[in-house]
Amino acid sequence: MKRAVVLLSGGLDSATCLGLARASGFDPVCLLVDYGQRHRAELAAARAVARSMGVSEVREVSVDLQKVGGSALTGDIPVPKDRPEVERARGIPVTYVPARNTLFLALALGLAEAVGARDIFIGVNAVDYSGYPDCRPEFIRAFEQLAALATRAGVQGEMFHIHAPLSGLSKADIIRTGARLGVDYSLTRSCYDPDPEGGACGRCDSCLIRRQGFEAAGIPDPTRYARP
Amino acid sequence: MKRAVVLLSGGLDSATCLGLARASGFDPVCLLVDYGQRHRAELAAARAVARSMGVSEVREVSVDLQKVGGSALTGDIPVPKDRPEVERARGIPVTYVPARNTLFLALALGLAEAVGARDIFIGVNAVDYSGYPDCRPEFIRAFEQLAALATRAGVQGEMFHIHAPLSGLSKADIIRTGARLGVDYSLTRSCYDPDPEGGACGRCDSCLIRRQGFEAAGIPDPTRYARP
Repeated sequence: MKRAVVLLSGGLDSATCLGLARASGFDPVCLLVDYGQRHRAELAAARAVARSMGVSEVREVSVDLQKVGGSALTGDIPVPKDRPEVERARGIPVTYVPARNTLFLALALGLAEAVGARDIFIGVNAVDYSGYPDCRPEFIRAFEQLAALATRAGVQGEMFHIHAPLSGLSKADIIRTGARLGVDYSLTRSCYDPDPEGGACGRCDSCLIRRQGFEAAGIPDPTRYARP
Repeated sequence: MKRAVVLLSGGLDSATCLGLARASGFDPVCLLVDYGQRHRAELAAARAVARSMGVSEVREVSVDLQKVGGSALTGDIPVPKDRPEVERARGIPVTYVPARNTLFLALALGLAEAVGARDIFIGVNAVDYSGYPDCRPEFIRAFEQLAALATRAGVQGEMFHIHAPLSGLSKADIIRTGARLGVDYSLTRSCYDPDPEGGACGRCDSCLIRRQGFEAAGIPDPTRYARP
């Protein structure tokens, strides 16, 4: 079985992405990144997801993005709540973390090269992408081109393939796909601003998109929200 | 004065690069990365260099690349010693750290966006580049293209400029340039495998290239090597 590095955040997108990587016949090496996110509860969720899917290798790398700042997810800017859909569709929210996916893919690329993998999975999606620039297909393609130039393997003529299998899917499609693959969504955490026990606020963009996705998919949402 | 993020390692290349950024009229924000390198003495050197050049803002970010592995600089692979020049010119050495410059530039990009800078300086050079793929001009250009797609600023039509002003220079040229700019090379550290007090081994590729560079430049090398 070919190895693939799978970026796993603990949210529902990356859990589905892991399910798809396995369904495509890859042996996943999961990469978890502790970047000083305020919703660090997602890391425990990521470990639980990896365990539930029988992943044999999990690597956790920490990088202190609080030193970089510039985001509601790593700094003192409050996480916006109760934003209506029209507002969410407009522009890039303050939860954008500058260059986060560039950093995640750089770490994944280093790990892939170190473990001899040539495939990397990232659970970005373009439809419900919350306005993050580094979730777009053109960003993924540009990183793939960079990877060929950045690495020893690339110099030796090998390519890295960055898989973004959720790219064209809506949140409801993603949930339906994961449900079919047996992903246990009760283990996943999406909330940007959980309470100290890791409970979902039910009001941040991420909670709102998650709830709506389960509703649209017609699948019961296993999340317990602070505001039902 | 326009701000620029300058990647500063503590070696002579990045110190010279900092000198050039200042000479070009930028207000430098220095980014130091503690990546678990065995030659961590370079971080103290980087702080000293920044101080000696009157830099007002220094950010230190740690990222644990020992968890990624695959390099003599972060793992258990021994650092090669006493390699003759013909051997050093051949292929990519084991001191290559998978995707290191991709990671460094990702961090610099995030910081640049967070502090409102659009310019990033990195002290890579292509002539004496030790065979590292991510020191080549084509890599730098590809990252610049990625940066435009990866960021909020890019979406808003702004470009990031990745400056690699040492790109076409030999080590001797770099040293001459820095000497002219008043860079204090006695503060810099190049050794990959220093003794516990930070003393240079004099035998790794980096020490050999440094020594040769000072000789070729006709400038006295202020380094005290373990093997004279």
